Amino acid sequence: MLLRVEYKGTDYCGWQRQKNGLSVQEVLARAVKETTGEASVMHGSGRTDAGVHAMGQAVHFDTHTNIPLDKLPIALNAHLPESIRVLSAREVPATFNARFDAKWKTYVYKLYSAPVSSPLREGLFAFVHKRPDLKKMRKAAEHILGEHDFKVFQAAGGHVKTTVRKITALEICENGDEITFEVTGNGFLYNMVRIMVGTLYYVGIGKIEADDIPDILLSGKRDRAGKTMPPEGLYLKEVGYDLDGEK
Amino acid sequence: MLLRVEYKGTDYCGWQRQKNGLSVQEVLARAVKETTGEASVMHGSGRTDAGVHAMGQAVHFDTHTNIPLDKLPIALNAHLPESIRVLSAREVPATFNARFDAKWKTYVYKLYSAPVSSPLREGLFAFVHKRPDLKKMRKAAEHILGEHDFKVFQAAGGHVKTTVRKITALEICENGDEITFEVTGNGFLYNMVRIMVGTLYYVGIGKIEADDIPDILLSGKRDRAGKTMPPEGLYLKEVGYDLDGEK
Repeated sequence: MLLRVEYKGTDYCGWQRQKNGLSVQEVLARAVKETTGEASVMHGSGRTDAGVHAMGQAVHFDTHTNIPLDKLPIALNAHLPESIRVLSAREVPATFNARFDAKWKTYVYKLYSAPVSSPLREGLFAFVHKRPDLKKMRKAAEHILGEHDFKVFQAAGGHVKTTVRKITALEICENGDEITFEVTGNGFLYNMVRIMVGTLYYVGIGKIEADDIPDILLSGKRDRAGKTMPPEGLYLKEVGYDLDGEK
Repeated sequence: MLLRVEYKGTDYCGWQRQKNGLSVQEVLARAVKETTGEASVMHGSGRTDAGVHAMGQAVHFDTHTNIPLDKLPIALNAHLPESIRVLSAREVPATFNARFDAKWKTYVYKLYSAPVSSPLREGLFAFVHKRPDLKKMRKAAEHILGEHDFKVFQAAGGHVKTTVRKITALEICENGDEITFEVTGNGFLYNMVRIMVGTLYYVGIGKIEADDIPDILLSGKRDRAGKTMPPEGLYLKEVGYDLDGEK
């Protein structure tokens, strides 16, 4: 079974089960247990850190439930807190894996740039005083598009065979004091989006030159990239698979 | 002194000081005391109920502080929780009153219409299953514009001499699953915006005919209007005064 799940990460220690703090994974597993009677392991498409949100985390688990597909989200939501909602459910082959079968992911990062921080955007936007120059950030974004070794955009603690990833879309939009980054790629390293946005922001406020991005990527040096932006601005928007009816 | 204040109403019993629960008014008064040393009464442009938000509540108070005007918001914000922020401060004549001198107010009401409720919009949008027809709601809105006796849009508990008010703007916008109402008028009765939006929503889902609105207004009967929408979708956006430099 494959679920699409929206959650507000503010009150969780992240997607993954931890010794300290409540994870989205365990709250979801508990709801599945209460709904189907089965003790199933919830497999997410990947971790999200504490405070990071999901508009569409993908989760698979094994089940023999006979609850009809269209009723399953309603049944699960009745056992979930308001901060987690199952948006949809679909059947998938037994071999399906939400993590290893993911073809692409889209993340959104939301910045709020104003003289004073915003109570109404608390926990949902990263707040910055200094307004970045969108033209410069868009110029830098062009250098990030494509296949590169993104080692400089990886936080310590990442363990992967290769740090080469392909970014297929990176758009930056402005709406009043809100700036939204939307990035799609075939995979993301640990904290990659937050460091990427931090680097684009540094370009936007003149701390890094847009045309230095290729050189920074080639350098492999984390300290030449921008800072890691805070978790509250980050959203896992969508995870793509090669399945019938998926785009 | 006149402040413009943004707050998230979720954790407060409303603007006004109450016996039970924490009010925005008392938290602000405490911050003023800690900042200026003066025990001042905070006079808001009007009450907001528990759970209702403000993008720009107007608040006046008397002070002899010598903190420069441009530094006052920063000083006050240092003593405020993240859920309340002073956006700006300006001097006003000693006779100025945030409530009685208000010439107009603008409220925003946010609806989220989707099959499943949204964790990321929790406390910030009112959730409805059934999607309303915008064309019908806009037709009904035309009947609300102008000067009318809005007694049918007043909840029990309102004590005013006259229930005649003038609505000068009422716009309904759609952005994906989000529907936003923005209404400006010379004054609003108790729960008026929430009942007005509830009535427009009933028109949008076919429970009330758009062209029955004039007759409903004339009837004076509360039970012919729609339901009172929940507080979490409501925002006091702006309060207008006849002051130099104000629009």
